[in-house]
Amino acid sequence: MSDQVYDKEMSFIKNLAGKFPRHPKQLNQLYEADAEILDFKNGLADYLVFKCDGIHEEIRAKLYEDPYLIGWMAVTVTISDLAAVGSDPLGILISLQLPKDSNESWIQKFQQGVNEACAVYDTKILGGDTNFDSNISVATTGIGTIEKTLPLLRKNINPGDFLYATAPLGKGNAFAYSRFFDSSLKLSYQPVARLKESKLIRKYAGACIDTSDGLFPALSILGELNNTGLKFSGPLEDILSGETANICNTASIPAWFFLAGPHGEYELLFTIPPSIKEEFEKELANEEWHPVLLGEITAERGLEFFIGKTHVHCNPSAIANMFGEAEGNILHYFQMLNQKHEQWTKPKSVLC
Amino acid sequence: MSDQVYDKEMSFIKNLAGKFPRHPKQLNQLYEADAEILDFKNGLADYLVFKCDGIHEEIRAKLYEDPYLIGWMAVTVTISDLAAVGSDPLGILISLQLPKDSNESWIQKFQQGVNEACAVYDTKILGGDTNFDSNISVATTGIGTIEKTLPLLRKNINPGDFLYATAPLGKGNAFAYSRFFDSSLKLSYQPVARLKESKLIRKYAGACIDTSDGLFPALSILGELNNTGLKFSGPLEDILSGETANICNTASIPAWFFLAGPHGEYELLFTIPPSIKEEFEKELANEEWHPVLLGEITAERGLEFFIGKTHVHCNPSAIANMFGEAEGNILHYFQMLNQKHEQWTKPKSVLC
Repeated sequence: MSDQVYDKEMSFIKNLAGKFPRHPKQLNQLYEADAEILDFKNGLADYLVFKCDGIHEEIRAKLYEDPYLIGWMAVTVTISDLAAVGSDPLGILISLQLPKDSNESWIQKFQQGVNEACAVYDTKILGGDTNFDSNISVATTGIGTIEKTLPLLRKNINPGDFLYATAPLGKGNAFAYSRFFDSSLKLSYQPVARLKESKLIRKYAGACIDTSDGLFPALSILGELNNTGLKFSGPLEDILSGETANICNTASIPAWFFLAGPHGEYELLFTIPPSIKEEFEKELANEEWHPVLLGEITAERGLEFFIGKTHVHCNPSAIANMFGEAEGNILHYFQMLNQKHEQWTKPKSVLC
Repeated sequence: MSDQVYDKEMSFIKNLAGKFPRHPKQLNQLYEADAEILDFKNGLADYLVFKCDGIHEEIRAKLYEDPYLIGWMAVTVTISDLAAVGSDPLGILISLQLPKDSNESWIQKFQQGVNEACAVYDTKILGGDTNFDSNISVATTGIGTIEKTLPLLRKNINPGDFLYATAPLGKGNAFAYSRFFDSSLKLSYQPVARLKESKLIRKYAGACIDTSDGLFPALSILGELNNTGLKFSGPLEDILSGETANICNTASIPAWFFLAGPHGEYELLFTIPPSIKEEFEKELANEEWHPVLLGEITAERGLEFFIGKTHVHCNPSAIANMFGEAEGNILHYFQMLNQKHEQWTKPKSVLC
């Protein structure tokens, strides 16, 4: 997991982190933002932003094996969080553990991944530390600044707000599916953190979060923090990326599996209040990217969507928790999703 | 190891980190400081300082088992580096990996260690991330500021400068000795990063480095960066802490072993040019702490000291490398030190 927390893990981490001393100038409370934000008004920046994140589990599960991808993702996961709070990256520190006998080719490819990601995000490596260990492990700390605007938090969501994603979703879980279940699928996975898009988003959005851990887990966090739910606008198939939709069709896997799973695609989710939706969409017309409208925020907790003609109203935390309950057993997790799907689709309308 | 590098590891890490993109406002080059420094003039601070460091090896080797000590050290190792560059901590991020079934008592003691260290250094936990893993691992990132003065680097050392330590040395290695070789020795080990002392040091010192990895490893770095050596002022026994000197005597272990080993005591080493030595010592008279004069910087590389009446002139990198050469086998490392000692003390004067 990363900092994304659900019911079961929330108490553990609240217990752990909630008792550490907090900076009086820290803007956000625990979980309220994708990165930590310090008020620095009258300084060079209005806010300084900090985030550390690792890709330990992805490496351990062999989801990421290609050293280029490991380097690329080490930078991307952290930049994505800086983008989600609406900040501009100042730089990154890399903390690396790798075997003493790592070969030159591995290191070169890792460096290339780091460097190409830094070039895309126009950011630099400020420092780091290297330890030798039998297992590879990479974590990064990102530092960002926010000037002349307020940070984006995960809060400030109201019923009636519209929820968008920066692009169609599901590719993170589709990639995991291809790695774990069907190696004949050659799915490219190299997400670009939505730093550029966040410059427009931060002008309009009420709240923002990235989908580093998948859509449903992100919606679980937003729902808990704001005491709200989401009614999807249309069939879930319609918000899947092209490659993901293809796998859905050819392998006959329900669309929601790819939105529920814990491996995300590093898109940004953001809410736009109805009063400025028109203005936002007008400005979008001049942009090269076009967000996907996911649905409308509801006062009632939970997610509402259709599977075929079956209306589902479910608790996203319960779905997000399943991966943890499967304790790293991917096959068992897949079976749990299948059971839930059967449970939903047998009767006409179900509450999970 | 941490960021402290010696001959053998230097090329590996230079190769790895030297190819990452660097920030145009970064003041220091690779290895030139205990932490990374960004020029932020006209901002709230003149410089922003960043450092990430872990205590992976200490935990893996079971040198640190007590959760309070793990929490305390996680904060202290990073604050010590912020102190070494003459900066004031803004806050810390904690990256933690721990078993899912960690018991409440472990977590409480860890938190207590973190919190009491933060209180002593008047700093806060800004954030972090938590992952579950079968092994415990802790890393921290510290952020600091420097105002109205220049950062302290590891450079700017000239022959004739005096080298001081903030306190007598050797306790880090004495603690390791008690843990690995003689559990009857109940040595207290809870170093306090020299943040307070660094406020005076930064006014006078040419260069500064902490002894996180022990004295000889730190001297190896200073020698390489400045192309200088060190002539110790007196017997090495005289610069050992009381408890360390006791172990030397009772266990008949040469004093230099405790200065050469890789587990440090988190004191600061700093150089004072002869022209301001008097002024520095005058100001010290009003302080509660009194540094230890280690010796004088020489134009000739290497370390010069006496073992009894035997004059030794050695390359500190060669000594610092021994721990790596022993590949984590503490007994083998101890035997290597003994062999070196025999080699030195048999003839009258030796070059290692």
